[in-house]
Amino acid sequence: MTVPAFQDLYPEGWSHCFGCGRLNEKGHHIRSFWDGEETVCTMSPEPWQIALPGYVYGGYLACLIDCHSTGSAAAALHRAAGQPMDQGPYPRCVTASLKVDYLKPTLLGPPIELRSQIVSVKGRKVVVSTSLRVEGQECVRGEAVLIQVPEDAFTPR
Amino acid sequence: MTVPAFQDLYPEGWSHCFGCGRLNEKGHHIRSFWDGEETVCTMSPEPWQIALPGYVYGGYLACLIDCHSTGSAAAALHRAAGQPMDQGPYPRCVTASLKVDYLKPTLLGPPIELRSQIVSVKGRKVVVSTSLRVEGQECVRGEAVLIQVPEDAFTPR
Repeated sequence: MTVPAFQDLYPEGWSHCFGCGRLNEKGHHIRSFWDGEETVCTMSPEPWQIALPGYVYGGYLACLIDCHSTGSAAAALHRAAGQPMDQGPYPRCVTASLKVDYLKPTLLGPPIELRSQIVSVKGRKVVVSTSLRVEGQECVRGEAVLIQVPEDAFTPR
Repeated sequence: MTVPAFQDLYPEGWSHCFGCGRLNEKGHHIRSFWDGEETVCTMSPEPWQIALPGYVYGGYLACLIDCHSTGSAAAALHRAAGQPMDQGPYPRCVTASLKVDYLKPTLLGPPIELRSQIVSVKGRKVVVSTSLRVEGQECVRGEAVLIQVPEDAFTPR
């Protein structure tokens, strides 16, 4: 049985995110899952997603941390509400703040693994801490503050 | 006379960044300029660069702040070294840390304007503070710490 990614369970109207929306044809399609108490995401950037030749673009890495954190926050809120993890709709969060520390250059080529911990869930606010590794080496750390949005928010004008 | 963007004056081998490299065919081509003591950048995202429908993807905004800050840091270092601003090669910086605060949703459609201040230049380290606005409304604030890399660093393996 295939386990759905967090992002597979967003409502259809909120599944157009460039980073993680399953309905955004040009997007990154970031997908996140539980692994015990951590959340994980594995991505392989395209050859043009570089900063300097041979190394992954830091903005792309910030995108991965952003959307993986948003998805992790949604999963944490869904779990905190006592909902079954494999059934949507998941709540949708937006990012209030994102802090990314680039510890060392991230090699282009091997898969990138993100592992996150849910630091806190307080009402609609979730804090997520992320470690990003390539070939076992930690290259980037991230911390994101995510806020659950009301279902009727962000109506396109 | 056309004024070159900071990113136009990077050495050719370091002009492949997905965010700002003039030689990256698929990239964003972020371009930054002086405006007095501030640096400015204006961008118009593509329709698919969204988070929720009608609003710009936060990861894209982080990319803008990242590359505009990197370019601003290069320009500040070039100026501090007494070099003429319209002649390269500019030094190349990488991001050590990036902090982005999303104050309000960023409307998709109108041009996005970034304005940055050079907070400090100490040796190879530059701190840049950025305000990102749409239709005059401040939507995002960023602070980045940039480090100048030696010319022989980051040789592709």
